[in-house]
Amino acid sequence: MNIGIVGLGLIGGSLGLDLRSHGHQVFGVSRKEETCQRAIARGAVDDASTSLTLMKNTDVVFICTPLGVMQATVEELIPHLSEDTVLTDVGSVKGWVVEAIAPLWANFVGGHPMAGTADSGIEAALRDLFVGTPYVLTPTETTPTRATQRVEEVVRPLQVQIYHCHPHDHDRAVAWISHLPVVVSASLIAACMGETNSTILELAQALASSGFRDTSRVGGGNPELGVMMASYNRAALVRSLHSYQGALNQMITWIEQEDWATLEVALKRIQAARPQFLR
Amino acid sequence: MNIGIVGLGLIGGSLGLDLRSHGHQVFGVSRKEETCQRAIARGAVDDASTSLTLMKNTDVVFICTPLGVMQATVEELIPHLSEDTVLTDVGSVKGWVVEAIAPLWANFVGGHPMAGTADSGIEAALRDLFVGTPYVLTPTETTPTRATQRVEEVVRPLQVQIYHCHPHDHDRAVAWISHLPVVVSASLIAACMGETNSTILELAQALASSGFRDTSRVGGGNPELGVMMASYNRAALVRSLHSYQGALNQMITWIEQEDWATLEVALKRIQAARPQFLR
Repeated sequence: MNIGIVGLGLIGGSLGLDLRSHGHQVFGVSRKEETCQRAIARGAVDDASTSLTLMKNTDVVFICTPLGVMQATVEELIPHLSEDTVLTDVGSVKGWVVEAIAPLWANFVGGHPMAGTADSGIEAALRDLFVGTPYVLTPTETTPTRATQRVEEVVRPLQVQIYHCHPHDHDRAVAWISHLPVVVSASLIAACMGETNSTILELAQALASSGFRDTSRVGGGNPELGVMMASYNRAALVRSLHSYQGALNQMITWIEQEDWATLEVALKRIQAARPQFLR
Repeated sequence: MNIGIVGLGLIGGSLGLDLRSHGHQVFGVSRKEETCQRAIARGAVDDASTSLTLMKNTDVVFICTPLGVMQATVEELIPHLSEDTVLTDVGSVKGWVVEAIAPLWANFVGGHPMAGTADSGIEAALRDLFVGTPYVLTPTETTPTRATQRVEEVVRPLQVQIYHCHPHDHDRAVAWISHLPVVVSASLIAACMGETNSTILELAQALASSGFRDTSRVGGGNPELGVMMASYNRAALVRSLHSYQGALNQMITWIEQEDWATLEVALKRIQAARPQFLR
């Protein structure tokens, strides 16, 4: 097939590398000419351009831009597409994206490949980035079945695990396991920063080891990404945050009341539950 | 020197392996005969016994039992020691330990080697476990300087980074970086377990990846250890938990009020602060 990729960053570039190796012709669009040249040089695309006219003969187009410019990008892209072209995106939030883009293009299927690294940009693109990772598709009642099938046909050879769900179910699920951890983890660092006794703060900084490193990792990540996920998935995140406040308050009450037996039962249930999130 | 180790688990066994390789004679005591035999076979001790009489000619004794039996162990040990013997412990909480043991033995110095693995027991003992890790000593106004110097002399060749602080400063510092993360992380798992929509819960379990894995790791750890640290370091932990509630509530307010500019400034400060805890 002829595949279009708009946005040649980590995800767009990695998709291009894999899809070319599976025999597709891949055409990429980036706002920057330099990125186009690097994408060609790295073998992520067969051809690249800063102009969306390059998308005119594509069968499937992956929108791989940041969420903030996705709607505007699709509006600009549409005049260049043939009616049969299937549009999909790789955004990490799906309710908002589907509501914004489905009305603009009938053959649209929301998607979220859940792979990545700490790096970004075309230089960070990797072959086989998606092997063994979940690829969520969020067709709705109005999504043509053929459109969903076409996207599946393209991404399945990347050895992804395909999941189908409603956009809002996706957003509530990722609020729990991706977005809530960011706020929980950032609040941990913020609380530690608030220690006003400099002797204790310096000691805490000196003594922190793998437990603190792991628990604080996602909270100390990219601030722009953190704000983006919070703003585009606000409702589901706030819902998860309120549940988290409840769980935390319960834990604090047990500790304050020295109810060690109940705390131990709870920690045992928590220990037993965790592996179900790590399959 | 003649070194005694009471409690031949991960820490006691690892200390034995290293101290023997630095030329000390190491004598170990365990409640179980089988552990004594394994400690000898693994080279962690020169001799081992289930009887504390083996400690009678030691210069320094490391108490490496769980916190819950430490005071009783020291009471039982004291009649076997010569007056000059220096006692130290490896407990992860210091205020309670120092208050319990210092009145029993003048030559006592609280200690906390901050090394470990996920495993426990004599089979988990490792050579060089302490290289590059912090080793906190908590002498007080009444601790003889010579006692502290003797412990330092023994542990410094293990290539540890020695810190001195007041027992309560230690406990407040580790509350921030070791104990608060456990409660924060356990509450994350507890909150996710509370999702009542089974479609969303199963999706969350299927989609969880490295962000969830890292943030939930210490919360899904050993429940007995979790309860122990909460009970023995309750005051400092509760203090940290209340600060954490404040930081979390602040974050939730920004998200609810869609105050993205303030949230981004905060996340940038948090991102910049984290490396100071990872030196």
